[in-house]
Amino acid sequence: MSGVLFIVGLGPGAPGHITDDARVALSQASDLLGYGLYVARARALGASPKAVSHETDNREELDRARHALDLAAQGRCPVVVSGGDAGVFGMASAVFEAVAQGPFSWRGLDIRVIPGVTAVLAVSARLGAPLGGDFCVISLSDNLKPWEVVARRLSLAAQAGLVIALYNPRSLARPDQLDKAFDVLRDVLPAETPVIFARAIGRENEHVLGVPLSEARGEAADMSTLVLVGCAQTRQIERPGLSPWLYTLRRIP
Amino acid sequence: MSGVLFIVGLGPGAPGHITDDARVALSQASDLLGYGLYVARARALGASPKAVSHETDNREELDRARHALDLAAQGRCPVVVSGGDAGVFGMASAVFEAVAQGPFSWRGLDIRVIPGVTAVLAVSARLGAPLGGDFCVISLSDNLKPWEVVARRLSLAAQAGLVIALYNPRSLARPDQLDKAFDVLRDVLPAETPVIFARAIGRENEHVLGVPLSEARGEAADMSTLVLVGCAQTRQIERPGLSPWLYTLRRIP
Repeated sequence: MSGVLFIVGLGPGAPGHITDDARVALSQASDLLGYGLYVARARALGASPKAVSHETDNREELDRARHALDLAAQGRCPVVVSGGDAGVFGMASAVFEAVAQGPFSWRGLDIRVIPGVTAVLAVSARLGAPLGGDFCVISLSDNLKPWEVVARRLSLAAQAGLVIALYNPRSLARPDQLDKAFDVLRDVLPAETPVIFARAIGRENEHVLGVPLSEARGEAADMSTLVLVGCAQTRQIERPGLSPWLYTLRRIP
Repeated sequence: MSGVLFIVGLGPGAPGHITDDARVALSQASDLLGYGLYVARARALGASPKAVSHETDNREELDRARHALDLAAQGRCPVVVSGGDAGVFGMASAVFEAVAQGPFSWRGLDIRVIPGVTAVLAVSARLGAPLGGDFCVISLSDNLKPWEVVARRLSLAAQAGLVIALYNPRSLARPDQLDKAFDVLRDVLPAETPVIFARAIGRENEHVLGVPLSEARGEAADMSTLVLVGCAQTRQIERPGLSPWLYTLRRIP
Protein backbone atom coordinates (compact mmCIF):
# COMPACT_ATOMS: atom_id res chain seq x y z
CA MET A 1 0.00 0.00 0.00
CA SER A 2 1.43 3.36 -0.97
CA GLY A 3 1.48 6.43 1.25
CA VAL A 4 0.97 10.10 0.60
CA LEU A 5 3.62 12.54 -0.58
CA PHE A 6 2.97 16.08 0.63
CA ILE A 7 4.76 19.04 -0.95
CA VAL A 8 4.33 21.90 1.48
CA GLY A 9 5.01 25.64 1.34
CA LEU A 10 5.76 26.97 4.83
CA GLY A 11 5.25 30.65 3.96
CA PRO A 12 7.97 33.27 3.68
CA GLY A 13 9.37 33.48 7.18
CA ALA A 14 6.98 34.67 9.85
CA PRO A 15 5.51 31.64 11.68
CA GLY A 16 2.03 33.22 11.34
CA HIS A 17 2.17 32.91 7.56
CA ILE A 18 1.64 29.15 7.64
CA THR A 19 -1.74 27.77 6.54
CA ASP A 20 -3.91 25.28 8.40
CA ASP A 21 -3.47 22.69 5.64
CA ALA A 22 0.33 22.98 5.82
CA ARG A 23 0.23 22.44 9.58
CA VAL A 24 -1.94 19.33 9.19
CA ALA A 25 0.45 17.89 6.59
CA LEU A 26 3.46 18.49 8.87
CA SER A 27 1.70 16.75 11.76
CA GLN A 28 1.30 13.62 9.60
CA ALA A 29 4.90 13.48 8.35
CA SER A 30 6.90 10.26 8.61
CA ASP A 31 9.84 12.02 6.95
CA LEU A 32 10.83 15.63 6.35
CA LEU A 33 12.85 16.38 3.22
CA GLY A 34 14.33 19.73 2.33
CA TYR A 35 17.02 22.30 2.75
CA GLY A 36 18.18 22.28 6.38
CA LEU A 37 16.72 25.70 7.16
CA TYR A 38 13.24 24.63 6.02
CA VAL A 39 13.36 21.28 7.83
CA ALA A 40 14.19 23.19 11.03
CA ARG A 41 11.29 25.57 10.43
CA ALA A 42 8.96 22.62 9.79
CA ARG A 43 9.94 21.17 13.18
CA ALA A 44 9.39 24.54 14.90
CA LEU A 45 5.97 24.76 13.22
CA GLY A 46 4.75 21.48 14.68
CA ALA A 47 5.95 18.64 12.47
CA SER A 48 5.44 15.17 13.97
CA PRO A 49 8.26 14.56 16.50
CA LYS A 50 8.60 11.05 15.07
CA ALA A 51 9.40 12.32 11.58
CA VAL A 52 12.86 11.45 10.25
CA SER A 53 14.83 14.45 8.93
CA HIS A 54 16.55 14.25 5.54
CA GLU A 55 18.35 17.52 5.04
CA THR A 56 19.95 18.08 1.67
CA ASP A 57 21.61 20.85 -0.20
CA ASN A 58 19.44 23.05 -2.42
CA ARG A 59 21.44 21.97 -5.47
CA GLU A 60 20.23 18.37 -5.16
CA GLU A 61 16.54 18.95 -5.80
CA LEU A 62 15.90 16.08 -8.22
CA ASP A 63 17.63 13.55 -5.92
CA ARG A 64 15.55 14.83 -3.01
CA ALA A 65 12.41 14.49 -5.11
CA ARG A 66 13.22 10.88 -6.06
CA HIS A 67 13.94 10.05 -2.44
CA ALA A 68 10.54 11.39 -1.40
CA LEU A 69 8.79 9.45 -4.18
CA ASP A 70 10.56 6.26 -3.09
CA LEU A 71 9.44 6.77 0.49
CA ALA A 72 5.81 7.33 -0.58
CA ALA A 73 5.95 4.19 -2.73
CA GLN A 74 7.05 2.28 0.39
CA GLY A 75 3.88 3.41 2.18
CA ARG A 76 5.43 6.21 4.22
CA CYS A 77 4.18 9.80 4.43
CA PRO A 78 7.08 12.01 3.37
CA VAL A 79 6.69 15.78 3.44
CA VAL A 80 8.89 17.84 1.13
CA VAL A 81 9.18 21.35 2.54
CA SER A 82 9.84 24.64 0.75
CA GLY A 83 9.84 28.22 1.97
CA GLY A 84 7.02 30.44 0.63
CA ASP A 85 4.91 28.48 -1.85
CA ALA A 86 6.35 25.19 -3.10
CA GLY A 87 5.10 25.88 -6.63
CA VAL A 88 6.99 29.19 -6.97
CA PHE A 89 10.69 28.33 -7.46
CA GLY A 90 10.19 25.66 -4.77
CA MET A 91 10.20 21.86 -4.80
CA ALA A 92 6.92 21.12 -6.60
CA SER A 93 8.30 21.24 -10.14
CA ALA A 94 11.27 19.07 -9.21
CA VAL A 95 8.95 16.37 -7.84
CA PHE A 96 6.83 16.26 -11.00
CA GLU A 97 9.96 16.25 -13.20
CA ALA A 98 11.14 13.24 -11.21
CA VAL A 99 7.76 11.54 -11.69
CA ALA A 100 7.89 12.13 -15.45
CA GLN A 101 11.39 10.56 -15.64
CA GLY A 102 10.75 7.80 -13.10
CA PRO A 103 9.03 4.40 -13.00
CA PHE A 104 5.49 4.37 -14.38
CA SER A 105 4.13 3.22 -11.00
CA TRP A 106 4.94 6.65 -9.51
CA ARG A 107 2.05 8.07 -11.59
CA GLY A 108 -0.36 6.24 -9.30
CA LEU A 109 1.01 7.86 -6.13
CA ASP A 110 -1.09 10.18 -4.00
CA ILE A 111 0.84 13.48 -4.31
CA ARG A 112 -0.68 16.54 -2.64
CA VAL A 113 0.76 20.03 -3.10
CA ILE A 114 -0.21 22.34 -0.23
CA PRO A 115 -0.07 26.00 -1.34
CA GLY A 116 1.55 28.68 0.79
CA VAL A 117 2.03 32.44 0.95
CA THR A 118 4.80 33.18 -1.56
CA ALA A 119 7.35 35.88 -0.69
CA VAL A 120 6.00 38.61 -2.97
CA LEU A 121 2.64 38.55 -1.17
CA ALA A 122 4.26 39.03 2.24
CA VAL A 123 6.50 41.81 0.89
CA SER A 124 3.53 43.54 -0.70
CA ALA A 125 1.53 43.32 2.55
CA ARG A 126 4.47 44.73 4.49
CA LEU A 127 4.79 47.74 2.14
CA GLY A 128 1.10 48.53 1.60
CA ALA A 129 -0.42 47.41 -1.70
CA PRO A 130 2.17 47.68 -4.48
CA LEU A 131 0.66 44.74 -6.42
CA GLY A 132 -2.61 46.68 -6.92
CA GLY A 133 -2.39 46.15 -10.68
CA ASP A 134 -1.08 43.31 -12.82
CA PHE A 135 2.30 41.85 -11.89
CA CYS A 136 4.89 39.22 -12.71
CA VAL A 137 7.30 37.03 -10.80
CA ILE A 138 10.72 36.36 -12.36
CA SER A 139 13.71 34.48 -10.99
CA LEU A 140 17.04 36.11 -11.79
CA SER A 141 18.95 32.88 -11.35
CA ASP A 142 20.55 31.68 -14.56
CA ASN A 143 21.34 28.24 -13.18
CA LEU A 144 18.41 26.88 -15.16
CA LYS A 145 17.87 29.41 -17.96
CA PRO A 146 20.21 31.49 -20.13
CA TRP A 147 20.71 35.13 -19.12
CA GLU A 148 19.39 36.21 -22.54
CA VAL A 149 15.99 34.72 -21.62
CA VAL A 150 15.99 36.56 -18.28
CA ALA A 151 16.92 39.88 -19.91
CA ARG A 152 14.28 39.54 -22.62
CA ARG A 153 11.60 38.73 -20.04
CA LEU A 154 12.54 41.73 -17.94
CA SER A 155 12.40 44.07 -20.90
CA LEU A 156 9.01 42.79 -22.10
CA ALA A 157 7.54 42.84 -18.56
CA ALA A 158 8.63 46.45 -18.16
CA GLN A 159 7.18 47.36 -21.57
CA ALA A 160 3.92 45.72 -20.46
CA GLY A 161 3.76 48.01 -17.43
CA LEU A 162 3.68 45.10 -14.98
CA VAL A 163 4.92 45.44 -11.42
CA ILE A 164 7.95 43.10 -11.34
CA ALA A 165 9.00 40.87 -8.44
CA LEU A 166 12.54 39.52 -8.71
CA TYR A 167 13.23 36.30 -6.81
CA ASN A 168 16.80 35.01 -6.26
CA PRO A 169 18.19 38.41 -7.26
CA ARG A 170 21.82 37.83 -6.32
CA SER A 171 24.18 35.14 -5.09
CA LEU A 172 27.91 34.80 -4.53
CA ALA A 173 28.16 32.96 -7.84
CA ARG A 174 26.22 35.72 -9.64
CA PRO A 175 27.29 39.02 -8.06
CA ASP A 176 26.69 41.19 -11.15
CA GLN A 177 23.35 40.01 -12.53
CA LEU A 178 21.11 42.29 -10.55
CA ASP A 179 23.01 45.32 -11.86
CA LYS A 180 22.62 43.97 -15.38
CA ALA A 181 18.89 43.54 -14.68
CA PHE A 182 18.59 47.17 -13.53
CA ASP A 183 20.35 48.26 -16.72
CA VAL A 184 17.76 46.38 -18.81
CA LEU A 185 14.92 47.98 -16.82
CA ARG A 186 16.43 51.47 -17.06
CA ASP A 187 16.28 51.18 -20.86
CA VAL A 188 12.48 50.96 -20.60
CA LEU A 189 11.26 52.53 -17.35
CA PRO A 190 11.49 56.14 -16.06
CA ALA A 191 14.32 57.00 -13.65
CA GLU A 192 11.89 57.66 -10.79
CA THR A 193 10.28 54.18 -10.89
CA PRO A 194 10.32 52.93 -7.28
CA VAL A 195 12.53 49.92 -6.49
CA ILE A 196 12.21 48.17 -3.14
CA PHE A 197 14.80 45.85 -1.61
CA ALA A 198 12.88 43.74 0.94
CA ARG A 199 15.12 41.49 3.01
CA ALA A 200 14.02 38.69 5.37
CA ILE A 201 10.42 39.98 5.60
CA GLY A 202 8.64 38.65 8.67
CA ARG A 203 11.92 37.60 10.31
CA GLU A 204 13.96 39.23 13.05
CA ASN A 205 16.49 40.80 10.74
CA GLU A 206 13.88 42.29 8.39
CA HIS A 207 15.11 45.25 6.36
CA VAL A 208 13.41 47.43 3.71
CA LEU A 209 15.10 49.94 1.41
CA GLY A 210 13.34 51.99 -1.27
CA VAL A 211 15.16 53.91 -4.00
CA PRO A 212 14.35 55.28 -7.46
CA LEU A 213 15.41 52.98 -10.32
CA SER A 214 18.13 55.47 -11.30
CA GLU A 215 19.85 54.83 -7.95
CA ALA A 216 19.21 51.07 -7.64
CA ARG A 217 22.43 49.10 -7.09
CA GLY A 218 22.76 45.33 -6.98
CA GLU A 219 24.91 45.41 -3.87
CA ALA A 220 21.79 46.31 -1.84
CA ALA A 221 20.51 42.73 -2.28
CA ASP A 222 21.52 39.23 -1.24
CA MET A 223 19.85 35.81 -1.58
CA SER A 224 17.36 36.64 1.20
CA THR A 225 16.16 39.75 -0.62
CA LEU A 226 13.15 40.13 -2.85
CA VAL A 227 13.39 43.08 -5.23
CA LEU A 228 10.14 44.74 -6.25
CA VAL A 229 10.01 47.16 -9.18
CA GLY A 230 6.95 49.41 -9.39
CA CYS A 231 5.08 50.61 -12.47
CA ALA A 232 3.70 53.93 -13.72
CA GLN A 233 0.72 53.68 -11.34
CA THR A 234 2.78 52.99 -8.18
CA ARG A 235 2.50 55.76 -5.57
CA GLN A 236 4.02 56.52 -2.19
CA ILE A 237 2.19 57.89 0.87
CA GLU A 238 4.55 59.89 3.08
CA ARG A 239 4.05 59.53 6.84
CA PRO A 240 5.83 61.84 9.28
CA GLY A 241 8.19 59.79 11.46
CA LEU A 242 7.07 56.50 9.91
CA SER A 243 8.13 54.55 6.83
CA PRO A 244 6.01 55.43 3.78
CA TRP A 245 3.29 53.21 2.36
CA LEU A 246 3.56 52.05 -1.24
CA TYR A 247 0.54 51.18 -3.34
CA THR A 248 -0.39 50.82 -6.99
CA LEU A 249 -3.49 52.56 -8.34
CA ARG A 250 -6.09 50.15 -9.62
CA ARG A 251 -7.22 52.53 -12.36
CA ILE A 252 -5.22 53.10 -15.55
CA PRO A 253 -6.46 56.16 -17.48
CA MET B 1 -6.79 56.58 20.86
CA SER B 2 -6.91 54.98 17.45
CA GLY B 3 -7.41 51.30 16.78
CA VAL B 4 -5.98 48.90 14.25
CA LEU B 5 -7.23 48.37 10.72
CA PHE B 6 -6.58 44.85 9.46
CA ILE B 7 -6.83 44.03 5.75
CA VAL B 8 -7.05 40.27 5.57
CA GLY B 9 -6.86 37.73 2.74
CA LEU B 10 -8.89 34.63 3.64
CA GLY B 11 -7.35 32.38 0.96
CA PRO B 12 -9.05 31.14 -2.18
CA GLY B 13 -11.88 28.98 -0.88
CA ALA B 14 -10.84 25.92 1.11
CA PRO B 15 -10.99 26.69 4.85
CA GLY B 16 -7.54 25.09 5.26
CA HIS B 17 -5.94 27.79 3.10
CA ILE B 18 -6.25 30.41 5.84
CA THR B 19 -3.07 31.50 7.66
CA ASP B 20 -2.55 31.73 11.41
CA ASP B 21 -2.11 35.52 11.22
CA ALA B 22 -5.43 35.91 9.37
CA ARG B 23 -7.22 33.85 12.02
CA VAL B 24 -5.74 36.00 14.82
CA ALA B 25 -6.86 39.19 13.07
CA LEU B 26 -10.40 37.83 12.64
CA SER B 27 -10.58 36.92 16.32
CA GLN B 28 -9.81 40.56 17.23
CA ALA B 29 -12.36 42.15 14.88
CA SER B 30 -14.81 44.73 16.18
CA ASP B 31 -16.23 45.07 12.67
CA LEU B 32 -16.13 42.97 9.50
CA LEU B 33 -16.26 44.84 6.20
CA GLY B 34 -16.47 43.22 2.79
CA TYR B 35 -18.49 41.55 0.11
CA GLY B 36 -21.21 39.44 1.76
CA LEU B 37 -19.66 36.13 0.72
CA TYR B 38 -16.33 36.99 2.35
CA VAL B 39 -17.92 38.33 5.54
CA ALA B 40 -19.79 35.02 5.84
CA ARG B 41 -16.54 33.10 5.29
CA ALA B 42 -14.79 35.25 7.92
CA ARG B 43 -17.51 34.30 10.43
CA ALA B 44 -17.20 30.59 9.55
CA LEU B 45 -13.40 30.87 10.00
CA GLY B 46 -13.67 32.12 13.57
CA ALA B 47 -14.22 35.88 13.53
CA SER B 48 -15.14 37.36 16.90
CA PRO B 49 -18.87 36.69 17.50
CA LYS B 50 -19.17 40.28 18.76
CA ALA B 51 -17.97 41.76 15.45
CA VAL B 52 -20.50 43.90 13.59
CA SER B 53 -21.00 42.93 9.94
CA HIS B 54 -20.93 45.61 7.23
CA GLU B 55 -21.64 43.85 3.95
CA THR B 56 -21.33 45.93 0.83
CA ASP B 57 -21.36 45.40 -2.89
CA ASN B 58 -18.03 44.80 -4.62
CA ARG B 59 -18.52 47.96 -6.71
CA GLU B 60 -18.31 50.18 -3.61
CA GLU B 61 -14.71 49.47 -2.63
CA LEU B 62 -13.56 53.05 -1.92
CA ASP B 63 -16.63 53.73 0.27
CA ARG B 64 -15.95 50.53 2.17
CA ALA B 65 -12.31 51.53 2.62
CA ARG B 66 -13.26 54.97 4.00
CA HIS B 67 -15.74 53.37 6.37
CA ALA B 68 -13.04 51.06 7.73
CA LEU B 69 -10.59 53.97 8.14
CA ASP B 70 -13.24 55.95 10.02
CA LEU B 71 -13.86 53.04 12.38
CA ALA B 72 -10.12 52.64 13.06
CA ALA B 73 -9.82 56.39 13.74
CA GLN B 74 -12.60 55.96 16.32
CA GLY B 75 -10.49 53.38 18.17
CA ARG B 76 -12.27 50.29 16.85
CA CYS B 77 -10.59 47.26 15.25
CA PRO B 78 -12.18 46.86 11.81
CA VAL B 79 -11.16 43.95 9.59
CA VAL B 80 -11.59 44.36 5.84
CA VAL B 81 -11.83 40.90 4.28
CA SER B 82 -10.93 39.76 0.77
CA GLY B 83 -10.82 36.32 -0.80
CA GLY B 84 -7.35 35.01 -1.71
CA ASP B 85 -4.73 37.66 -0.95
CA ALA B 86 -6.02 41.19 -0.25
CA GLY B 87 -3.14 42.72 -2.24
CA VAL B 88 -3.98 40.87 -5.47
CA PHE B 89 -7.12 42.50 -6.94
CA GLY B 90 -8.46 42.63 -3.37
CA MET B 91 -9.17 45.46 -0.93
CA ALA B 92 -5.63 46.57 0.00
CA SER B 93 -5.13 49.04 -2.86
CA ALA B 94 -8.55 50.60 -2.28
CA VAL B 95 -7.71 51.26 1.37
CA PHE B 96 -4.42 52.99 0.55
CA GLU B 97 -6.08 55.00 -2.24
CA ALA B 98 -8.61 56.17 0.35
CA VAL B 99 -5.78 57.09 2.74
CA ALA B 100 -4.03 59.12 0.04
CA GLN B 101 -7.25 61.04 -0.70
CA GLY B 102 -8.42 61.32 2.92
CA PRO B 103 -7.62 63.45 5.98
CA PHE B 104 -3.93 63.70 6.84
CA SER B 105 -4.56 62.11 10.24
CA TRP B 106 -5.31 58.76 8.55
CA ARG B 107 -1.57 58.51 7.73
CA GLY B 108 -0.93 57.92 11.41
CA LEU B 109 -3.29 54.93 11.63
CA ASP B 110 -2.03 51.44 12.39
CA ILE B 111 -2.91 49.56 9.17
CA ARG B 112 -1.81 45.94 8.90
CA VAL B 113 -2.17 43.94 5.70
CA ILE B 114 -2.24 40.18 6.38
CA PRO B 115 -1.17 38.24 3.28
CA GLY B 116 -3.04 35.18 2.08
CA VAL B 117 -2.81 32.40 -0.50
CA THR B 118 -3.88 33.99 -3.78
CA ALA B 119 -5.98 31.92 -6.19
CA VAL B 120 -3.24 31.13 -8.70
CA LEU B 121 -1.18 29.37 -6.01
CA ALA B 122 -4.09 27.12 -5.04
CA VAL B 123 -4.86 26.36 -8.68
CA SER B 124 -1.22 25.55 -9.37
CA ALA B 125 -1.07 23.23 -6.34
CA ARG B 126 -4.25 21.48 -7.47
CA LEU B 127 -2.85 20.85 -10.97
CA GLY B 128 0.74 19.91 -10.07
CA ALA B 129 3.38 22.59 -10.61
CA PRO B 130 2.50 24.67 -13.69
CA LEU B 131 4.16 27.82 -12.25
CA GLY B 132 7.57 26.08 -12.26
CA GLY B 133 9.06 28.95 -14.27
CA ASP B 134 8.39 32.69 -14.34
CA PHE B 135 4.77 33.79 -14.43
CA CYS B 136 2.41 36.76 -14.43
CA VAL B 137 -0.98 37.59 -13.00
CA ILE B 138 -3.31 39.74 -15.11
CA SER B 139 -6.91 40.82 -14.47
CA LEU B 140 -9.08 40.76 -17.58
CA SER B 141 -11.55 43.23 -16.12
CA ASP B 142 -11.66 46.49 -18.03
CA ASN B 143 -13.64 48.30 -15.34
CA LEU B 144 -10.44 50.03 -14.28
CA LYS B 145 -8.18 49.88 -17.33
CA PRO B 146 -8.77 50.17 -21.08
CA TRP B 147 -8.98 46.94 -23.06
CA GLU B 148 -6.04 48.09 -25.21
CA VAL B 149 -3.82 47.94 -22.11
CA VAL B 150 -5.03 44.43 -21.27
CA ALA B 151 -4.45 43.21 -24.84
CA ARG B 152 -0.97 44.71 -25.01
CA ARG B 153 0.00 43.13 -21.68
CA LEU B 154 -1.25 39.72 -22.81
CA SER B 155 0.72 39.89 -26.02
CA LEU B 156 3.96 40.97 -24.31
CA ALA B 157 3.57 38.37 -21.54
CA ALA B 158 3.12 35.65 -24.15
CA GLN B 159 6.15 36.90 -26.10
CA ALA B 160 8.12 36.78 -22.83
CA GLY B 161 7.28 33.10 -22.40
CA LEU B 162 5.64 33.65 -19.02
CA VAL B 163 2.96 31.33 -17.69
CA ILE B 164 -0.14 33.58 -17.56
CA ALA B 165 -2.82 33.54 -14.86
CA LEU B 166 -6.00 35.40 -15.81
CA TYR B 167 -8.11 36.68 -12.91
CA ASN B 168 -11.70 37.96 -13.42
CA PRO B 169 -11.76 36.35 -16.86
CA ARG B 170 -15.44 36.86 -17.61
CA SER B 171 -18.57 38.51 -16.29
CA LEU B 172 -22.12 39.09 -17.48
CA ALA B 173 -21.12 42.63 -18.40
CA ARG B 174 -18.07 41.39 -20.34
CA PRO B 175 -19.12 38.14 -22.02
CA ASP B 176 -16.73 38.42 -25.00
CA GLN B 177 -13.44 39.56 -23.50
CA LEU B 178 -12.00 36.17 -22.75
CA ASP B 179 -12.45 35.13 -26.37
CA LYS B 180 -10.72 38.34 -27.44
CA ALA B 181 -7.90 37.51 -24.99
CA PHE B 182 -7.50 34.01 -26.49
CA ASP B 183 -7.31 35.61 -29.96
CA VAL B 184 -4.46 37.84 -28.77
CA LEU B 185 -2.64 34.85 -27.27
CA ARG B 186 -3.16 32.70 -30.39
CA ASP B 187 -1.31 35.35 -32.42
CA VAL B 188 1.81 34.62 -30.32
CA LEU B 189 1.63 31.13 -28.81
CA PRO B 190 1.51 27.67 -30.48
CA ALA B 191 -1.89 26.02 -30.94
CA GLU B 192 -1.02 23.21 -28.49
CA THR B 193 -0.25 25.55 -25.54
CA PRO B 194 -2.21 24.14 -22.58
CA VAL B 195 -5.06 26.26 -21.21
CA ILE B 196 -6.71 25.33 -17.90
CA PHE B 197 -10.08 26.55 -16.70
CA ALA B 198 -10.02 26.10 -12.91
CA ARG B 199 -13.36 26.86 -11.26
CA ALA B 200 -14.03 27.19 -7.50
CA ILE B 201 -10.79 25.41 -6.51
CA GLY B 202 -10.96 24.06 -2.96
CA ARG B 203 -14.75 24.40 -2.84
CA GLU B 204 -17.50 21.80 -3.21
CA ASN B 205 -18.29 22.63 -6.81
CA GLU B 206 -14.65 22.56 -7.95
CA HIS B 207 -14.19 21.91 -11.67
CA VAL B 208 -11.09 21.69 -13.85
CA LEU B 209 -10.99 21.64 -17.67
CA GLY B 210 -7.82 21.52 -19.77
CA VAL B 211 -7.74 22.20 -23.53
CA PRO B 212 -5.16 23.29 -26.10
CA LEU B 213 -5.17 27.04 -26.83
CA SER B 214 -6.57 26.35 -30.30
CA GLU B 215 -9.74 24.98 -28.69
CA ALA B 216 -10.06 27.42 -25.77
CA ARG B 217 -13.47 29.15 -25.67
CA GLY B 218 -14.52 31.93 -23.31
CA GLU B 219 -17.83 30.25 -22.51
CA ALA B 220 -15.92 27.68 -20.41
CA ALA B 221 -15.29 30.38 -17.75
CA ASP B 222 -17.30 32.48 -15.34
CA MET B 223 -16.34 34.93 -12.55
CA SER B 224 -15.35 32.04 -10.25
CA THR B 225 -12.88 30.69 -12.79
CA LEU B 226 -9.16 31.29 -12.97
CA VAL B 227 -7.69 30.67 -16.42
CA LEU B 228 -4.10 29.48 -16.58
CA VAL B 229 -2.15 29.57 -19.86
CA GLY B 230 1.02 27.48 -20.00
CA CYS B 231 4.29 28.22 -21.74
CA ALA B 232 6.72 26.33 -23.99
CA GLN B 233 8.11 24.40 -21.00
CA THR B 234 4.72 23.26 -19.62
CA ARG B 235 4.27 19.47 -19.70
CA GLN B 236 1.51 17.00 -18.88
CA ILE B 237 1.91 13.67 -17.07
CA GLU B 238 -0.78 11.21 -18.14
CA ARG B 239 -2.18 8.95 -15.41
CA PRO B 240 -4.44 6.01 -16.28
CA GLY B 241 -7.88 6.58 -14.75
CA LEU B 242 -6.81 9.79 -13.04
CA SER B 243 -6.64 13.43 -14.11
CA PRO B 244 -3.21 14.34 -15.53
CA TRP B 245 -0.62 16.38 -13.66
CA LEU B 246 0.61 19.60 -15.21
CA TYR B 247 4.04 21.04 -14.49
CA THR B 248 6.48 23.49 -16.01
CA LEU B 249 10.11 22.49 -16.50
CA ARG B 250 12.51 24.62 -14.49
CA ARG B 251 15.21 24.41 -17.14
CA ILE B 252 15.10 26.43 -20.37
CA PRO B 253 17.65 25.16 -22.92
